[in-house]
Amino acid sequence: VQLAVDPQRMLADLRALAAFGQVDTGVDRRALSDIDMEARRWLVGRMEAAGLDARIDGVGNVIGKTAHARRILIGSHTDTVPNGGWLDGALGVICGLEIARCVQAQGGDVGVEVLSLSDEEGHFSALLGSRAFCDGFNAEAQGRARNAAGESLSEALDRSGLAGTAVARLDPQAHIAYLEAHIEQGPVLEVRGVEIGIVTHIVGLREYRVTFTGEANHAGTTPMSMRRDASAALLHFGARLDQACRALNGAYAVWNIGRLHSEPAASNVVSSLASCPVQFRSTEEGVLDQITAMVATQAAAAADEFDVQWSASLAVQVPVANLDPALTDQVELAAQDLQASTLRMPSGAGHDAMAFAAHLPTAMLFIPSEGGVSHSTAENSAEASLVQGLNVLARAVERISRAAQTGRTIA
Amino acid sequence: VQLAVDPQRMLADLRALAAFGQVDTGVDRRALSDIDMEARRWLVGRMEAAGLDARIDGVGNVIGKTAHARRILIGSHTDTVPNGGWLDGALGVICGLEIARCVQAQGGDVGVEVLSLSDEEGHFSALLGSRAFCDGFNAEAQGRARNAAGESLSEALDRSGLAGTAVARLDPQAHIAYLEAHIEQGPVLEVRGVEIGIVTHIVGLREYRVTFTGEANHAGTTPMSMRRDASAALLHFGARLDQACRALNGAYAVWNIGRLHSEPAASNVVSSLASCPVQFRSTEEGVLDQITAMVATQAAAAADEFDVQWSASLAVQVPVANLDPALTDQVELAAQDLQASTLRMPSGAGHDAMAFAAHLPTAMLFIPSEGGVSHSTAENSAEASLVQGLNVLARAVERISRAAQTGRTIA
Repeated sequence: VQLAVDPQRMLADLRALAAFGQVDTGVDRRALSDIDMEARRWLVGRMEAAGLDARIDGVGNVIGKTAHARRILIGSHTDTVPNGGWLDGALGVICGLEIARCVQAQGGDVGVEVLSLSDEEGHFSALLGSRAFCDGFNAEAQGRARNAAGESLSEALDRSGLAGTAVARLDPQAHIAYLEAHIEQGPVLEVRGVEIGIVTHIVGLREYRVTFTGEANHAGTTPMSMRRDASAALLHFGARLDQACRALNGAYAVWNIGRLHSEPAASNVVSSLASCPVQFRSTEEGVLDQITAMVATQAAAAADEFDVQWSASLAVQVPVANLDPALTDQVELAAQDLQASTLRMPSGAGHDAMAFAAHLPTAMLFIPSEGGVSHSTAENSAEASLVQGLNVLARAVERISRAAQTGRTIA
Repeated sequence: VQLAVDPQRMLADLRALAAFGQVDTGVDRRALSDIDMEARRWLVGRMEAAGLDARIDGVGNVIGKTAHARRILIGSHTDTVPNGGWLDGALGVICGLEIARCVQAQGGDVGVEVLSLSDEEGHFSALLGSRAFCDGFNAEAQGRARNAAGESLSEALDRSGLAGTAVARLDPQAHIAYLEAHIEQGPVLEVRGVEIGIVTHIVGLREYRVTFTGEANHAGTTPMSMRRDASAALLHFGARLDQACRALNGAYAVWNIGRLHSEPAASNVVSSLASCPVQFRSTEEGVLDQITAMVATQAAAAADEFDVQWSASLAVQVPVANLDPALTDQVELAAQDLQASTLRMPSGAGHDAMAFAAHLPTAMLFIPSEGGVSHSTAENSAEASLVQGLNVLARAVERISRAAQTGRTIA
């Protein structure tokens, strides 16, 4: 049976959600803020109006499910970064809501469960809701995480009236797959003129904080040969690491040195300290291992050359998430059913799907982002793209439901 | 006649001066601060007690002269950087005071004029006193300079009771040479085990503020080929400029990138802006021109490679000061008279002597700095070095006076 999704109803919900925390053409709904909680309660109301069994769990996840015994999870998030965009996360949740409206009245034993997963953006702790759903939540240990304003997660849950509420958990008997539609947040689909991105992996990420420690000295009176210049070491390190990474021919990898720091930061003083984060991502753990080794090799070489000390400490490590090949095929076929052009691509950004990929067959689709812009109030996508994302996701749900109901393994 | 300088009396004066604004083993006498003015009035008292005609001029210069018609200027400064050392500047002034004590009772027509030149360190305006003395002072234009606390020089002069007082000027009829003894502020003499540095040039300095402007982008979702990474451009620029400067074989040059800045300075965002000051010094204007050209060449190449914009604006330019060869010979001979080991060397730091070198035969000597440290409360020199500096300077004054009195040109 074909799902009679209503694009105008989906767009109206998406615009209604965008009014919560509106900032210019964007929104500011940091996780568990008062406005974020207001948006969650509005979402519960919309789910109930759609005939779903809806609630907010103990970490803020909004869960709305049809009455079917087995359910396809359709999730994403409604929290945003400060001064973020109106589609990042919201698109996937509202598409799920629209699809659930159509599914809930259907027969059969496969329905839909819509998730707005809490704090994907990490105001307190990245992927808080999806990780709690998939891996459990330790209120005592994880509750100590604090937001930029210094409020702890425990305090925020208490303030939001969620303390003591049970945290929903993944149920392998009931949940048969996880699907997420999201804006690309990058320029690739737009530049290539492709309508739907079929996500094959979510890249793994490592971030090292690299520090060189030398000696502050007068930049006029200290001969070059007697300097221990931490900034010079960092400049050579950064340039050579970039060169070395470019030689990783063929492997999918991106890398970034996004912050340059030096001390004492005076133009007439040789730097005693220089540091930078080196963040890199790949679809292959082996490539992440290679870049890790290159960081150490190049840092040691630069430190040796400039007679400084070096250290590199791992600040962030996120493993590669491999999405499910068979489920991904279903999403691609769904797009092809609708004559949408597709591109198989990795996701360079993290998503709630990462938490699910280790537990359930998981697939994601992207729609193009205008100018590749996200995490900004200027974030936008063409209305036709929003509608196409909904239609492809609905078609994928039809395909996956049919496969599940006919007893075939869906992935 | 030999000058009967008294090293213990000089050391006692030096230690008494160090009590004004004492901070641990160092001092804090920012130009025209209350404590700096107190030290200047103390110095006038010591000059008068030594039989000199002493006063404070309209910018804070302390001037004490013997009654002779022609005079050798012996100068340096008693202001310091914040939390500075007890010898930087003070040594040269107090050596001058001790020598003037011995000269003032002598016959002949060549005496000494001791100068504590105001604000050498640039609390308001670098070399304020020496430039006013040599080149004149425009109270209206120059009075607008402000210190870090926001006080203007005009306000400070007013507060210090100096407004309306005449500013002393160089008198080519009376002033026959300028001599300055100073701590090296670098490690060369100590490392080489040399007692007295004979300064041949004060290096010229140029500082460019180099800025790369690209585009902020998501460091995960933006392919490397679509980035306009300002930090990457700066890293490659800095490394290549350093390589290029090392190829300036033989020429005396030092260079420094002492501050690294990037925006928005997030590890997961490609930098939209990166900037650094490039400061370089040489004893040859031609070398400064070469490095200037290299800055432009390398910045343009890096900007082109990373598809970013670049700019380089001149922030500071100080010409090379060539000290007087004949007068410098006299200082070297004076050291040799006293069996002190010597090394001809450039000064990598600026000094009051720079202002005088264009107008009068000018020479400088250095004594070793312990560990090469200055602009720090830890700054120090061995007592034997202080005394040797005094003795060599006194011997140079004897040599120069004798030459002047016998009617020979002194330089």
